[in-house]
Amino acid sequence: MSDVSAVKAALKSQVIETPSWGYGNSGTRFKVFAQPGVPRDPFEKLADAAQVHTYTGVAPKVSLHIPWDRVEDYAALTRYADGLGLRIGAINSNVFQDDDFKLGSVTHPDPKIRRKATDHLLECVDIMDGTNYPGQDDIVGRQNRLAEALAEVYARLGDDQRMLLEYKLFEPAFYTTDVPDWGTSYAHCLKLGPKAQVVVDTGHHAPGTNIEFIVAFLLREGKLGAFDFNSASTPTTTSWPGAADPFQLFRIMHEVVKNGGLRPETDVNFMLDQCHNIEAKIPAVIRSVTNVQEATAKALLIDAEALAAAQRSGDVLASNGVLMDAFNTDVRPLLAEVREELGLARDPFAAYLASGNQERIAVDRVGGQQAGWGA
Amino acid sequence: MSDVSAVKAALKSQVIETPSWGYGNSGTRFKVFAQPGVPRDPFEKLADAAQVHTYTGVAPKVSLHIPWDRVEDYAALTRYADGLGLRIGAINSNVFQDDDFKLGSVTHPDPKIRRKATDHLLECVDIMDGTNYPGQDDIVGRQNRLAEALAEVYARLGDDQRMLLEYKLFEPAFYTTDVPDWGTSYAHCLKLGPKAQVVVDTGHHAPGTNIEFIVAFLLREGKLGAFDFNSASTPTTTSWPGAADPFQLFRIMHEVVKNGGLRPETDVNFMLDQCHNIEAKIPAVIRSVTNVQEATAKALLIDAEALAAAQRSGDVLASNGVLMDAFNTDVRPLLAEVREELGLARDPFAAYLASGNQERIAVDRVGGQQAGWGA
Amino acid sequence: MSDVSAVKAALKSQVIETPSWGYGNSGTRFKVFAQPGVPRDPFEKLADAAQVHTYTGVAPKVSLHIPWDRVEDYAALTRYADGLGLRIGAINSNVFQDDDFKLGSVTHPDPKIRRKATDHLLECVDIMDGTNYPGQDDIVGRQNRLAEALAEVYARLGDDQRMLLEYKLFEPAFYTTDVPDWGTSYAHCLKLGPKAQVVVDTGHHAPGTNIEFIVAFLLREGKLGAFDFNSASTPTTTSWPGAADPFQLFRIMHEVVKNGGLRPETDVNFMLDQCHNIEAKIPAVIRSVTNVQEATAKALLIDAEALAAAQRSGDVLASNGVLMDAFNTDVRPLLAEVREELGLARDPFAAYLASGNQERIAVDRVGGQQAGWGA
Amino acid sequence: MSDVSAVKAALKSQVIETPSWGYGNSGTRFKVFAQPGVPRDPFEKLADAAQVHTYTGVAPKVSLHIPWDRVEDYAALTRYADGLGLRIGAINSNVFQDDDFKLGSVTHPDPKIRRKATDHLLECVDIMDGTNYPGQDDIVGRQNRLAEALAEVYARLGDDQRMLLEYKLFEPAFYTTDVPDWGTSYAHCLKLGPKAQVVVDTGHHAPGTNIEFIVAFLLREGKLGAFDFNSASTPTTTSWPGAADPFQLFRIMHEVVKNGGLRPETDVNFMLDQCHNIEAKIPAVIRSVTNVQEATAKALLIDAEALAAAQRSGDVLASNGVLMDAFNTDVRPLLAEVREELGLARDPFAAYLASGNQERIAVDRVGGQQAGWGA
Repeated sequence: MSDVSAVKAALKSQVIETPSWGYGNSGTRFKVFAQPGVPRDPFEKLADAAQVHTYTGVAPKVSLHIPWDRVEDYAALTRYADGLGLRIGAINSNVFQDDDFKLGSVTHPDPKIRRKATDHLLECVDIMDGTNYPGQDDIVGRQNRLAEALAEVYARLGDDQRMLLEYKLFEPAFYTTDVPDWGTSYAHCLKLGPKAQVVVDTGHHAPGTNIEFIVAFLLREGKLGAFDFNSASTPTTTSWPGAADPFQLFRIMHEVVKNGGLRPETDVNFMLDQCHNIEAKIPAVIRSVTNVQEATAKALLIDAEALAAAQRSGDVLASNGVLMDAFNTDVRPLLAEVREELGLARDPFAAYLASGNQERIAVDRVGGQQAGWGA
Repeated sequence: MSDVSAVKAALKSQVIETPSWGYGNSGTRFKVFAQPGVPRDPFEKLADAAQVHTYTGVAPKVSLHIPWDRVEDYAALTRYADGLGLRIGAINSNVFQDDDFKLGSVTHPDPKIRRKATDHLLECVDIMDGTNYPGQDDIVGRQNRLAEALAEVYARLGDDQRMLLEYKLFEPAFYTTDVPDWGTSYAHCLKLGPKAQVVVDTGHHAPGTNIEFIVAFLLREGKLGAFDFNSASTPTTTSWPGAADPFQLFRIMHEVVKNGGLRPETDVNFMLDQCHNIEAKIPAVIRSVTNVQEATAKALLIDAEALAAAQRSGDVLASNGVLMDAFNTDVRPLLAEVREELGLARDPFAAYLASGNQERIAVDRVGGQQAGWGA
Repeated sequence: MSDVSAVKAALKSQVIETPSWGYGNSGTRFKVFAQPGVPRDPFEKLADAAQVHTYTGVAPKVSLHIPWDRVEDYAALTRYADGLGLRIGAINSNVFQDDDFKLGSVTHPDPKIRRKATDHLLECVDIMDGTNYPGQDDIVGRQNRLAEALAEVYARLGDDQRMLLEYKLFEPAFYTTDVPDWGTSYAHCLKLGPKAQVVVDTGHHAPGTNIEFIVAFLLREGKLGAFDFNSASTPTTTSWPGAADPFQLFRIMHEVVKNGGLRPETDVNFMLDQCHNIEAKIPAVIRSVTNVQEATAKALLIDAEALAAAQRSGDVLASNGVLMDAFNTDVRPLLAEVREELGLARDPFAAYLASGNQERIAVDRVGGQQAGWGA
Repeated sequence: MSDVSAVKAALKSQVIETPSWGYGNSGTRFKVFAQPGVPRDPFEKLADAAQVHTYTGVAPKVSLHIPWDRVEDYAALTRYADGLGLRIGAINSNVFQDDDFKLGSVTHPDPKIRRKATDHLLECVDIMDGTNYPGQDDIVGRQNRLAEALAEVYARLGDDQRMLLEYKLFEPAFYTTDVPDWGTSYAHCLKLGPKAQVVVDTGHHAPGTNIEFIVAFLLREGKLGAFDFNSASTPTTTSWPGAADPFQLFRIMHEVVKNGGLRPETDVNFMLDQCHNIEAKIPAVIRSVTNVQEATAKALLIDAEALAAAQRSGDVLASNGVLMDAFNTDVRPLLAEVREELGLARDPFAAYLASGNQERIAVDRVGGQQAGWGA
């Protein structure tokens, strides 16, 4: 896609969803790191997400996490998001308790508001179960129970809802998780039906796994529902050292672009899933958003015709060269132009830092229990 | 299964298939190691396989590999196997050339011999393709071509034939293989139909992969076609250090036993896939066969009722303890008894060494081109 | 060492150190799991450790962790241990703050008590630092600061003190830890002097690492100070799935036995480092102790002369066979005899469960703040 | 180093050594891939290396490999290199046989020519030994034999010779190699003396290893002798998928630049070690050379003062940002200028392809035995 205006249009229409838990305190299992200005409730998390959208222009959606974002009045939360120019994105839940079924139907009391504020209410299911010891439980028995539970949730999905099933090699379970790889997630989704799709979290694989292969394969099958980008090495995930690899992100976005994953009708959700322990949250999320944008811009700049021609001719060096040409391009000026055309500052990171917001929230958000990671 | 006679019966009926290429010369890409007495053609490989069966009693089947085992007259080869008390097992092929389609129908000229000598002629497809560089080829385009080729082969399968699709993380391709993981193999097999099944090679995974989970999952789905056991670290596979792990083999066999994989009607093929570079081939294969037998015996000795009760009660230490009790049992006396009851020597390894065969073949097999690995 | 009485003597004199934090609550970063009867202070942790020693006879030493085991009066804690038949083992600290230097000199106020109760006061230094992002800090600058800090601690070591420097591939830092591998620890220890030695934690390596090689190498160099056995997959460490591998443990203990690591004068500290999240702590630690004992017993049973002869003759299968013969032996009867000769119950796990202690502490230890993991 | 002229000067003085075996046929253990125009002897390999130097201007040195590059008259080979404007770089040998000791003293017959043509004759020792089975040999016994052999070679080094000791996690040995990691190599080099140094091959590590940490550490210790860059995923090494990572190469070169590794007096040898199986050799090596140049240019562009200031202030995002700014820069125009100033074509890849050399050698080099990988 070497037509610059088409590249710009694609970049302007990209939507990157940020996670509410990316704005709260977080930590490793050894320590939770407190920061000044950290939000004290889900409403303040939304306010922070709105800052990120204000400066990047591509982050209008926020993922919630149940139970971390449990509030009394979900309609009020949705209206608040609406007022900030945000939409609620994926509702992540990691358990199947009655409470959460209730939360699965979160916005039923006022369906009109839900329709207005959320385009697609997604159910992102992250099975955090598994076993720590060989023999601890029956692997097939657990799969049977999982299949039943998923089928129950699936049956409750509304017409505009999807179920997104995430997989993870390990942690918190250490012998085996119940959905350790994309194959397991895919097999369950296939049986559930068209509204069930796989989430690829870039930090949840065994070392040596070619993630872009999985992305391409799932797009071919119509089963790629969403990404969780761990564009920084973070403790919310089994991050392998080096997971924050811009070249990998580019290769992934190449498969996304090539296989139609960026087209709105494909409906792939681009989510960030990360926590920033030791640095200020809002600028860190802005950085993560621009990282995804840069990888996307480079992927859009790949000369698809030249690539296909080189591949057809079997010229390995030439075809790899077409890819590397795009990767080696400095896309920051292009993105600055895109932002300018959207009426935004050319450098969202610098603009946010200059806005004084960081100092403001450090002063305003004093007292109360700070809502942290896992809180 | 704590009933000793049932355990013994299961051990007596187990069939472990050995690979013709396990008897030839082999090596790493740096060097091929020549050994005295190495077979000079597929007939001599069968003779060696017959030795293994003579002393173990559980290895009546031999996998062939095309093109390594190409002969003029397949009917003659089949008759020769028959005379040795062997059956031809899986026909491995790693290409889709016309020649190999011909070989896929190997025994058509004389169907009666085929019926008699081979119970199930399996087609084991090992896609050794892939790419070495990002951008070298179109991942989805390759999947489309693969799907077409597999569908063509599948359409030619006879009523008693299966297609077994192997996967491998990498090598010989280094950027991505075309069937890198069980999920890819499973997805293709699902579309192909019931005669297509997945082969689990214990040495073809990313580090950290829980192989027994995959085994259990595939058995649950009726899609486990065969094992390739790399019970020794060998250069035919991407062997990770420590792949030759008796505890892993036991955990795998536990899932096999628990989920009916040992029952003849499940029709899981237990194959060895390994080359022994620096040690004598026949005793090395005997050792590999007894390793699989020992893991199977231990898995059969697991007290299934006690395990289920401990699992139901949520007693992690007790349920793990039931498993470990079986693993810690010395099953060599039990296997010696089983062999004795089959009219075999109690120790197949020692009996073979004492037989003088090794010295005999070293003398007899002089001259001619030694059939080596890749030959 | 095939002389049974020598094997028994070696098993009787083995000392396995248990960690105080193995008795407290623990968890993953997602959740800390509370259990009835969990100790409320370091004294109750010692009481639990004494239970393990009572039933196994080989666990008279307890590692403390600073700041988790900070008490007002260390002399009182030491006296309490003494009364229970325990000795304080390694003092683990993971920071270099002034407070901890104070704690490094923990028992100075009353050196006689220290002499009596602790044979070797070890300083186990676990550098939990590192960086999360490329560029976050200067790698060499950090090494320089680390070297200075270690040199300061080393200079304060008493004549009967050692410094044990642990390494860990990653976590809690995700880009790079400051002591990521044995080479880094070894290089620092070499410069520090003879009282500095390396700790091998069996769960702190990259996948594919041959741990027994490292053990053999460090013993050859006189630089193996201690083990941290993660004989269960636990969240206190970067446990790789499959880390709880009895065959690996056996291979490690073989190198220990072969290279003199079990001899008291070599002074290798055998420590457990694990947390049991979801099972009762004391029986779980007993199980871990007996796992190490079983691996040790099997290693001691290796016929060293037969092994050396097979190795000299270049007979790969025979030399591997000598090893496997020992591994395949069921050593539980031998260990039961050893315990009987020590006046203990043959099965420490069953004996503890029958003792009623577990029920007793669940009743007695109510109220107060439960001392948990990280507390 | 943001002074452009200094950056250019550094780029002009960089020397990248190419391997003779990178020009011959190569393959995986399954197949050796033949190519038209492949050199038929070491002289033709040098001619190909001269092509790479002609177009890149930074590749005047060629590594030889014994026994693959064994010739009758080494003085003639050296003179031939000299005439092409090349110098012989590292002499790689992977065995300690008598023949190779002879080859270690390769150029003794005519010391004047050696002095003139080779600046530093390096001995690059790649211990390709190890064991395939637990128990196969005594790990410590092997280390003792290795130490003796290395000491013998070391004793024969001339004043201007170095010994470079490479390490490799595994392959061709699968249970354990004899020099599996940098720690083992470092420990041996330390005992040998100042002329022994470690080679870091970027493709020889366990997954998850932070290679730039090792580079920084070895530079701090004065023990980094050379790099083997596997900038493409190739079968000469244990390449992990994704090893060809430009971001990793940049992080490595950052540590090199920061810690003085680019200064001539540090005497770090920058070698390529790779085989290109399926693409034309000379353009592939040119591409590899320019990849290393690009990573070096980006590393040189890092604003060292801004980085140090951000690190001192503990601003994680800012310090990472300084690094990423340099990485995101498109350095191809800068390198084109550097080449122009050296009197070279701006694009060496295109210039070589336009030169007609590839077609010429395909015609000229017919007949004779093509010197392939391992030949």
